[in-house]
Amino acid sequence: MSLVVVGSVAYDGVETPHGKVERMLGGACTYISLAASYFTPVKIVAVVGDDFRQEDLDLLAARGIDLAGLERVPGKTFFYSCVYSADMNERTTLQTDLNVFADFQPRLPEHYKNQPYLLLGNIQPALQRGVRKQMDGLRLAGGDTMNYWIQGYREELLETIREWDFLLINDSEARLLSGESVLRRAAAAILGMGPRILVIKRGEHGAVLFTAAGNFSVPGYLLDPVFDPTGAGDCFAGGFIGYLAEQGADPRRGELDSKLLRRAVVYGSVLGSFCCERFGVDRFRDLTRAEIDGRFLEFKASTDF
Amino acid sequence: MSLVVVGSVAYDGVETPHGKVERMLGGACTYISLAASYFTPVKIVAVVGDDFRQEDLDLLAARGIDLAGLERVPGKTFFYSCVYSADMNERTTLQTDLNVFADFQPRLPEHYKNQPYLLLGNIQPALQRGVRKQMDGLRLAGGDTMNYWIQGYREELLETIREWDFLLINDSEARLLSGESVLRRAAAAILGMGPRILVIKRGEHGAVLFTAAGNFSVPGYLLDPVFDPTGAGDCFAGGFIGYLAEQGADPRRGELDSKLLRRAVVYGSVLGSFCCERFGVDRFRDLTRAEIDGRFLEFKASTDF
Repeated sequence: MSLVVVGSVAYDGVETPHGKVERMLGGACTYISLAASYFTPVKIVAVVGDDFRQEDLDLLAARGIDLAGLERVPGKTFFYSCVYSADMNERTTLQTDLNVFADFQPRLPEHYKNQPYLLLGNIQPALQRGVRKQMDGLRLAGGDTMNYWIQGYREELLETIREWDFLLINDSEARLLSGESVLRRAAAAILGMGPRILVIKRGEHGAVLFTAAGNFSVPGYLLDPVFDPTGAGDCFAGGFIGYLAEQGADPRRGELDSKLLRRAVVYGSVLGSFCCERFGVDRFRDLTRAEIDGRFLEFKASTDF
Repeated sequence: MSLVVVGSVAYDGVETPHGKVERMLGGACTYISLAASYFTPVKIVAVVGDDFRQEDLDLLAARGIDLAGLERVPGKTFFYSCVYSADMNERTTLQTDLNVFADFQPRLPEHYKNQPYLLLGNIQPALQRGVRKQMDGLRLAGGDTMNYWIQGYREELLETIREWDFLLINDSEARLLSGESVLRRAAAAILGMGPRILVIKRGEHGAVLFTAAGNFSVPGYLLDPVFDPTGAGDCFAGGFIGYLAEQGADPRRGELDSKLLRRAVVYGSVLGSFCCERFGVDRFRDLTRAEIDGRFLEFKASTDF
C-alpha cells in the first residue's frame, strides 16, 4: 500500500538572508516524497539527467523511496535558481533550465499501477491526467498546480482536477483559479470544480481545509528563523497525503472523517515547518518521526483553548 | 468593577472597495469601549468638540457606557480619513485633523479612579502613564501603541509599558519595538520590557499570545467579505480586556490562568471579526452577546483537531 508521487526532481540554487547554495537537490517530487516517507512507502516517477549525483540517489533510497520510476536520460537535470527577499515573502526566479524535464513523459513501472494513493506534483495538467489514467484501484488522488497552468492551460487543468479527490494550492492560486478574492468564496467555487477536499496553503500564516462539512484553520508554526522556505509547500503536501495513506484513508467508503483530514493538515504543516529549518532538503538528513510527532503535539498545545 | 478606557473618540472618513462614508463615528476609545461593553461595565475618558452629535452619544450610552469622563470642549472633534487598497491590506491616510484632540489631557472623574481594569488606547505614552498614575487598586492594566510613538518617543514609551501587565500590538510594531524580525524573538524581547502578557495581532491572519508559559496562536476568522477593517484592532483589544474583566482576572493572586488568557484572545478575535462586517461601528448597532458566543464556538469548531 504505497503512495505514488509524480513531479520534478531538480537541482536548485537558492539565496536567502541566511546564506547561499549554488546547487543542491530540489524539486517538488523530491520534497513531497521525503516528507511522505515518514508515514508510508513512497514510489516516485520523475526524470533526471546523467549529471544526477549518486549521493542524491542515496538520500532518497535511505528513506526507503522506490526509485524504479526515476528515469535517467542523457542530458542535464532540471535546474532552477532564485533569491528570496529580506523578509522571505518574495521570491525572484534567476534561472529556469528545464533540460531533460522539458520532455518528461511520466511512465509508471508495472508495480506502481495498482497502488492506492497518488500525489501529482506541479507539472503540465495533461501529464498529471495521463498518470492518473495509468493507475488502477486508486483510493485517493490529488495534487498541486500553479499560476502558470491556471492562466495558460485553464481548460486542461479544469479537466484534470475534475477527477481529483483533493487539491492543494496557495491562496493567490485559489483566487486566480476561482476568480473570487474572498477566500471562502474561492473555496466554494473550487469545491464545485471536482475536488471534495481543498487545502489552501498560506505560507507562514498556516493553512485552511475546506470540505462540504466545513472549514478548519491551522495557524503557521512560529519558526526561529525561517532559514529557507524552498519546498515547504511540497513538504506540506507530502505530510498531508503521507499521513492519510498511513491511516488507510478510503473515501470510497464514504466521506473521510473530518478529524482524520484535520490531522493530515496539521501533519502537513509540521513537515512544511521542518523543511524551512535548513537549506533545501538538509533537514531530512536527520529528521525523525519522533520529532514530527513532537511538533504535532506542539501544534496541539499552542492552538487549544 | 468596571473597565476604564482612554483614547480617541473621532469622526472618520473611510473608503473601501465596498463603499465610502464621508464622516462617521470612530476612534480607538469608541471601538474598544463598544466591544468591551458586551462583557463588563465600561467608563471612557476622551475629548470631543462641540460638533459631536447627540446620536453618537446615544449609541455609546445605549451600550451602558459611562460618559462622565467624555469631555466636551469648544472646537472640532478629531477627524481622520483614509482609503484602503483593493485587497484592504494597505491603508493610505488622506487627512488627520487632531482638532480638540491635540490638547487632550485625560482627567479621570473620581468614581473612575478605583476601578480594577484599565485599557490605554493608542495615545502619547506620557499621557498613558499619567492616567495609570491616577488609578488606585488596579488589577490589570495595559494597552496599545503605534509606530509613531515607537520611533519618536521610544524612551518615554519604554518607561510607560514597563508598568503594564499586557501589551497589544501588531506584528510590524512588535518588530519595530524589539528590533527583531523573527516573531518569537521579538516577543521574547518585549516580554523583557515589562508586560508579562503580549498579544501580537496579525490582521486577517489572526493573533498570537506570548507569556512565560508559552505561546498560543489563533487563526483569523474567514470573513465574507471584509467590509471595512477600520477599528478591528481596537475591537480586538476591547473583547480581550472585556472578557478578562468579566471573568474577574486578577494577576495579583499569581499568574493568570493560560486557558483564561487564550479565551480572551479568541474573544478579541471574535469582536475584531464582527467589526469588519460593516462600515465603522455599524455592526455594534445590533450585535448581540449570543452572536458573540456563537462565533466563539465557531472558532472552537474550526480550529479543533
